[in-house]
Amino acid sequence: MTGFRYLSFLTDYGLEDGFVAACHGVAAQIAPDARVIDITHLVQPGDVRRGAAVLAQTVAYLPPSAHVAVVDPGVGTTRRAIAVQAGHSVLVGPDNGLLSWAVAALGGASMAVQLTNGDLWRHPVSATFHGRDIFMPVAAHLAAGLELAEAGDEIAVADLMTLPAPTSRVHDGEAEGEVMSVDRFGNVQLSIPAAEVGVLGLRIGEPLIVRAGRRQMTVPYLETFAAGAPGEIVAFTDSAGLISLAVNAGDAAQQLGLPPGAHVRITQAHPG
Amino acid sequence: MTGFRYLSFLTDYGLEDGFVAACHGVAAQIAPDARVIDITHLVQPGDVRRGAAVLAQTVAYLPPSAHVAVVDPGVGTTRRAIAVQAGHSVLVGPDNGLLSWAVAALGGASMAVQLTNGDLWRHPVSATFHGRDIFMPVAAHLAAGLELAEAGDEIAVADLMTLPAPTSRVHDGEAEGEVMSVDRFGNVQLSIPAAEVGVLGLRIGEPLIVRAGRRQMTVPYLETFAAGAPGEIVAFTDSAGLISLAVNAGDAAQQLGLPPGAHVRITQAHPG
Amino acid sequence: MTGFRYLSFLTDYGLEDGFVAACHGVAAQIAPDARVIDITHLVQPGDVRRGAAVLAQTVAYLPPSAHVAVVDPGVGTTRRAIAVQAGHSVLVGPDNGLLSWAVAALGGASMAVQLTNGDLWRHPVSATFHGRDIFMPVAAHLAAGLELAEAGDEIAVADLMTLPAPTSRVHDGEAEGEVMSVDRFGNVQLSIPAAEVGVLGLRIGEPLIVRAGRRQMTVPYLETFAAGAPGEIVAFTDSAGLISLAVNAGDAAQQLGLPPGAHVRITQAHPG
Repeated sequence: MTGFRYLSFLTDYGLEDGFVAACHGVAAQIAPDARVIDITHLVQPGDVRRGAAVLAQTVAYLPPSAHVAVVDPGVGTTRRAIAVQAGHSVLVGPDNGLLSWAVAALGGASMAVQLTNGDLWRHPVSATFHGRDIFMPVAAHLAAGLELAEAGDEIAVADLMTLPAPTSRVHDGEAEGEVMSVDRFGNVQLSIPAAEVGVLGLRIGEPLIVRAGRRQMTVPYLETFAAGAPGEIVAFTDSAGLISLAVNAGDAAQQLGLPPGAHVRITQAHPG
Repeated sequence: MTGFRYLSFLTDYGLEDGFVAACHGVAAQIAPDARVIDITHLVQPGDVRRGAAVLAQTVAYLPPSAHVAVVDPGVGTTRRAIAVQAGHSVLVGPDNGLLSWAVAALGGASMAVQLTNGDLWRHPVSATFHGRDIFMPVAAHLAAGLELAEAGDEIAVADLMTLPAPTSRVHDGEAEGEVMSVDRFGNVQLSIPAAEVGVLGLRIGEPLIVRAGRRQMTVPYLETFAAGAPGEIVAFTDSAGLISLAVNAGDAAQQLGLPPGAHVRITQAHPG
Repeated sequence: MTGFRYLSFLTDYGLEDGFVAACHGVAAQIAPDARVIDITHLVQPGDVRRGAAVLAQTVAYLPPSAHVAVVDPGVGTTRRAIAVQAGHSVLVGPDNGLLSWAVAALGGASMAVQLTNGDLWRHPVSATFHGRDIFMPVAAHLAAGLELAEAGDEIAVADLMTLPAPTSRVHDGEAEGEVMSVDRFGNVQLSIPAAEVGVLGLRIGEPLIVRAGRRQMTVPYLETFAAGAPGEIVAFTDSAGLISLAVNAGDAAQQLGLPPGAHVRITQAHPG
């Protein structure tokens, strides 16, 4: 490894305090030539699953980086601090599953280290702000050229904590999944890849049946939500390659009452 | 053209997802030496007019840039993707009027291209995320030195879609306009340039009569809102050179109930 | 002084308008090699005290910078515009106390200048947007190598406006203070340094009595909020070295009803 030109940064710190800037400042002093790409700092406090989803869906579009992610309700307890090599990048954060989906999206972990080399940290280490005092300093040292092995003790990649993958399976002509996330536009992203729906023989331009709880509706499967009539619920393949439900010029999540985690099934509509 | 050191970026993507960062990452890989100045990503979803207003009022203060703007309710439909040369900058986005006021603010379009050169795009192109797959990649190539003519087919600048300019006229001793926008402080920006009000003979320090709907009020025309008494409604020339209504240490938009688009007239107060 | 590689930037401008970007653009044209670290732009409009607190708690983690801070309800009135040398940094903003706590955190003012050199400003100067037209241009010139003395007329550091420091004293076995701020997690930061509480003999792992108004509660003093039971109110030393009250996986500010400024006392719990 010869370092990284970029650091990426995802947290639940919010934008109202100076927390994010303090981390930027610490990084600037260790790796002055690295640039920071902020992914988001508006993950709901402690929502590890949401942080994992946003991170996993974004890293593929970033250059090779030291990716720092901190959604860490267990900060200061016994959860481990880790750095994981995956593809041409390294991910740094708490070992609570937050990094796991992004690691998979980058091709899987090739090496993992528990962060035990305190020489790299900012001291005194706050018990509640490891982003500033451990994760960002270590990532900045990696960006500046430190070998991953120098960051701590190597641990087995099989021992890394992983979040259970979102449900998604195809059986008996039905695609089953759950609501992954709801974006700013109210679009409801399902954990069902468009490729799987294709296997079922569902084609763009045809109607689908969507079942959620006791509710059932027939919606068109279109190229884009903008092709729907205003107010019409449509299914489309979103920018992450997943089936999503949207309302043209409206808020599908609100209209459908489908929160993250809700179970959803999709089948072909057989008229008549 | 020899490229741009800066990209600017305005969208309605919000800050809670990874959409903005994905675009930053795509730009970094094409134009690693360019810097991105984020204008805002909090335009209300689909509010093209608001996006156009913020863009037009900001570009004058930015260095020569490839300005990328994406408020694009018609993404994936037949609306064109364009790049427009204006002054020393180029603007990239959907041809839905979003760029039109900024183009005018920069001195008008000298050349326009429909983005048809797919070699510059990120593939596969998502039907719903042209910011990541078309607009930002093309802008980054322009920043890296690509000639505008290489981005696609030249089109007539007269054929570009433009938003109707906000109403603003002076007649019979009266300045007529509309509410352009409401900022974070609740200041109500009118489409009436201070210069026009000057033509009417209205001078700082004198009272004005403001009419909106059936409402009429006499307010002082001051150098700045901070010169008003706490709670007092005042008119002043804002940082964009437009007449604005404000309440010192208060929220004028809330107090006056004046939303964007509301019709407003201003005349000189003739006491007695 | 030989300039600064970094500018930091804190305001109450919000993120919905183009105000912050206009300032970035102005800086880029004067000091193209400087980088801007945004601290926050979500200070509540006009809340000088909150801006001062966030600035003071963040500057220690930033590299030597020209720190620009603008929370300026008196913009355009007679309040002075200033630049203050403190430690290896310079702070630029209105002379309304906003900078005062950060100046103290950086070791105190060694020199101060009233910004009177209009050659450095952007013209015409808006009466309401000194961030764009005065503060940021001057800071960018300082970053680019201008001597502080060239920015205007030297003034006595003793004449700078300062905000009253937050109450904090220890007497009769009691630590007294006030609520400094509430962060995104709902953690209630007190103005009581952990060091003072240590002087009282209060130790981590032991219970404390917290009094606020007529309310009294006994809470454990723990290493971190994450060590508390879910829903339990705990005291801990926060990342700024101050005593804070938190609820593990909850919102302490909401639960306790303690706004900024509320008076709080802490004593040792003597069971029995």
